[in-house]
Amino acid sequence: AMDAAPPPAAPSGLSAYVAVSQLLGLTLLATTGAWLGRYRGGVAWHSPLQFNAHPLCMVLGMVFLQGDALLVYRVFRHEAKRSTKALHALLHGLALLIALVGIIAVFESHRAKGIPDMYSLHSWCGMATFVLYLLQWLLGCGFFLFPGASFSLRGWYKPQHVFFGITLFILSITSCLLGITEMLLFKISDSYSHFVPEGILANTLGVLLVAFGLVVGYVLTREEWKRPPLAEELALSMDFKTLTEGESPGG
Amino acid sequence: AMDAAPPPAAPSGLSAYVAVSQLLGLTLLATTGAWLGRYRGGVAWHSPLQFNAHPLCMVLGMVFLQGDALLVYRVFRHEAKRSTKALHALLHGLALLIALVGIIAVFESHRAKGIPDMYSLHSWCGMATFVLYLLQWLLGCGFFLFPGASFSLRGWYKPQHVFFGITLFILSITSCLLGITEMLLFKISDSYSHFVPEGILANTLGVLLVAFGLVVGYVLTREEWKRPPLAEELALSMDFKTLTEGESPGG
Repeated sequence: AMDAAPPPAAPSGLSAYVAVSQLLGLTLLATTGAWLGRYRGGVAWHSPLQFNAHPLCMVLGMVFLQGDALLVYRVFRHEAKRSTKALHALLHGLALLIALVGIIAVFESHRAKGIPDMYSLHSWCGMATFVLYLLQWLLGCGFFLFPGASFSLRGWYKPQHVFFGITLFILSITSCLLGITEMLLFKISDSYSHFVPEGILANTLGVLLVAFGLVVGYVLTREEWKRPPLAEELALSMDFKTLTEGESPGG
Repeated sequence: AMDAAPPPAAPSGLSAYVAVSQLLGLTLLATTGAWLGRYRGGVAWHSPLQFNAHPLCMVLGMVFLQGDALLVYRVFRHEAKRSTKALHALLHGLALLIALVGIIAVFESHRAKGIPDMYSLHSWCGMATFVLYLLQWLLGCGFFLFPGASFSLRGWYKPQHVFFGITLFILSITSCLLGITEMLLFKISDSYSHFVPEGILANTLGVLLVAFGLVVGYVLTREEWKRPPLAEELALSMDFKTLTEGESPGG
């Protein structure tokens, strides 16, 4: 019997998961805003409230935008790879900028209050994640956006880029959870163990961060949901195989 | 030209990565022991030191043993699947038992000192991880060890089992980092920001936990290092395909 290749299945489940991820992402931002607004006096720049810009920027940049940047190849699966790549780089670039603002906020706030920098596990994990994320972005641009890199170099780097991309997303979420724990133990250490509303709200933010990571991670790693190569990309890679292996496409 | 399938490459890199993971795992245990022994008075059961059994058991069970249980299919890649499976289930079972001891330690220590349970983000994440890990173990035994489950049911469940297995491993490490942060802010909140040795040591433990997770995760997700099916397993799955699709193996 001749096995015809099955037609590409319409990934209906994918849309539902992506929708849930975006709902979770918005809930994440709303919960962060509610925590800072309701219990921490709100967010302002030239003020003692400058610190509060830190959690807001990190959740927006390093979690929500970074997560969405990872999802673009699943969502825009039938667009030209060129434009999807540009969007991927752009979202990560925006995430980096917003995260930079969040990092400046915490350093300036520490200086104003005379608090030392970079002593906690949260700061070590967070800073390492940010620096490696910047490096990953630069390497990604170098390998995939600029025309210099050869096909084989790109092929070698791609699995590393994907692995470290997901790793940095997980580390970003982990750093947020560490930050939540630090902030609660600094601000409400006396009442946290009495299940006060602020503690429950901030814990819930932590759970939402994990849930967002879980849904995004599931969408990214599900084999059937990976972006199928377009017809012209397949043709191109066959030309490439032909050139490098010295075979005619007919084999 | 006829393309002969390339012979299975000897995964030399794999051995190096596995060796590094085991070195990191042992360093992890030594660092936990050094922290508890040098700065926290050591570990004992019927004593005010009972709490210290908690971090030790969790790092040993939920990180080191769980990580090694995930690695067995990469390490014992040419053994019969049956024995590798049994080892996988056994290591996870041992991890669960040791983690249970660690959980009992913290609940008994809280009761002795009048500290409330389950209010912190660490406790929420840690308990959720433990309960889901137990569930995953039970489901794994049900689907893969007992002969009742059909091939197609196993084939449907396997990717879920793998995804949630890696997720629970990551959540276990995250819960440890949260626990380290909590413990430091409870015990040395005044000196932590002055870069005291205990703070640096515990932060380093956090970094080692991340490094262990990174190396194990890299080994698990690298495509070329996945366990190749043995010849008899291939034959079996071909028989199965033949039975279900009603085709002769010759096509």
